[in-house]
Amino acid sequence: MIPEDHPRHAALVVREHLANAMRRGIVAPEGLIAQGRGEAFDYLLGEQTTESAARAERTAAAMLLSARNPVISVNGNTAALCAAAIADLQRASGAAVEVNLFHRTEERMRAITALLAEAGVEVLSGEPERLIPLSHDRALCLQHGIGAADLVLVPLEDGDRCAALRQMGKRVIAVDLNPLSRTAQTATLPIIDEVRRALPAITAACASLTPAEAEALAASVDGSVYLHQAIDSIVRRLQEVEHALE
Amino acid sequence: MIPEDHPRHAALVVREHLANAMRRGIVAPEGLIAQGRGEAFDYLLGEQTTESAARAERTAAAMLLSARNPVISVNGNTAALCAAAIADLQRASGAAVEVNLFHRTEERMRAITALLAEAGVEVLSGEPERLIPLSHDRALCLQHGIGAADLVLVPLEDGDRCAALRQMGKRVIAVDLNPLSRTAQTATLPIIDEVRRALPAITAACASLTPAEAEALAASVDGSVYLHQAIDSIVRRLQEVEHALE
Repeated sequence: MIPEDHPRHAALVVREHLANAMRRGIVAPEGLIAQGRGEAFDYLLGEQTTESAARAERTAAAMLLSARNPVISVNGNTAALCAAAIADLQRASGAAVEVNLFHRTEERMRAITALLAEAGVEVLSGEPERLIPLSHDRALCLQHGIGAADLVLVPLEDGDRCAALRQMGKRVIAVDLNPLSRTAQTATLPIIDEVRRALPAITAACASLTPAEAEALAASVDGSVYLHQAIDSIVRRLQEVEHALE
Repeated sequence: MIPEDHPRHAALVVREHLANAMRRGIVAPEGLIAQGRGEAFDYLLGEQTTESAARAERTAAAMLLSARNPVISVNGNTAALCAAAIADLQRASGAAVEVNLFHRTEERMRAITALLAEAGVEVLSGEPERLIPLSHDRALCLQHGIGAADLVLVPLEDGDRCAALRQMGKRVIAVDLNPLSRTAQTATLPIIDEVRRALPAITAACASLTPAEAEALAASVDGSVYLHQAIDSIVRRLQEVEHALE
């Protein structure tokens, strides 16, 4: 049991939750390391949604609502952290949901699909094909899912798939706490925010945007602005900490 | 197998090694998350030993050589990453080595002790007592080890033990990639560097310092200088990345 008065109580509860999800085969061991990298950047961002990220989340909602075939690509960490939030976002945006894993086994695919279905997510199924230009198993996707998507939301990603999806002519929204990552830098729209804060914010924005507002917002997306603003936030926070040092 | 031409090959090999160490019970699942936090800060530091950290490592050697009862406190991650380097540092510095775990079980204590012994480390043994003012199991240590130490080197630490050791009047050298952490901020000497680079650097400095040089260096240690310099390095790197963004 984690004591409730521990100064890092919320972070410790999430860590324990993910460690348990790993024991159940939902999260890969490497997924725990990825969580740690995210924690470090979130800490540097002050563990709250910046104004810039909130604007990105509203833009993400607009892009999802304006897309013809939007797909949310879910991996183990996202499923473990956000299953119910994905169900809500699917309902609000009409996006399809597909499971895509780097450490892909049939067992993990089944466990993650079951976890999502329990939370109310409708998960795409079918025979995966090697459609994404990548040498590893993230290449595998469904023709009627990510294969046919014009927009893919990748809530958490570690690697080179974002660039490969962009090469295929798709728009990509990435949720990534590291503004220096290849994923954040190659996404059409990088959301530099914690996934458990980002997805509900996108869902809320889906409900508040008119179709005309959504189309206008989605038409002019400049991802690099969000990278600059996130880096500026981190630099400001580091400078504040430094001033407070004796 | 991790392809050798992968741009992040070295990091991926370490991740796989730690994931395997977790499967063998050496590393706790939470230890993988801690590794990820470290990776993020190391990335921001350019994944190399800064000049400031190199000076801290030389100072650490001086402190170890000048201490009466120096003890190196080893946890699961440190054992998994650095067993041979700890053996070398023990030989060079004459420090005792004690295993101290947050997620403490008899099984993990045995597995980590065996791993260290195989690498040539002489590990202290005996009946642990609750000597450190902490409510969790990191309070447990040996009276003739950390209990009697005037200097404790904590190569990796996540939590409040550093402050507790300082309260007991001990000097603490911490190796911590996060210059904002409580550990880094409460240590007598924070070494803001990756542990696999830091320990061999301390060992090398032990061999090159004369007793008089060691005593002079160890007498005047200002930890906050290293925190400032590490934060400055991170800020500079972020600003460089930002300038390179389109």
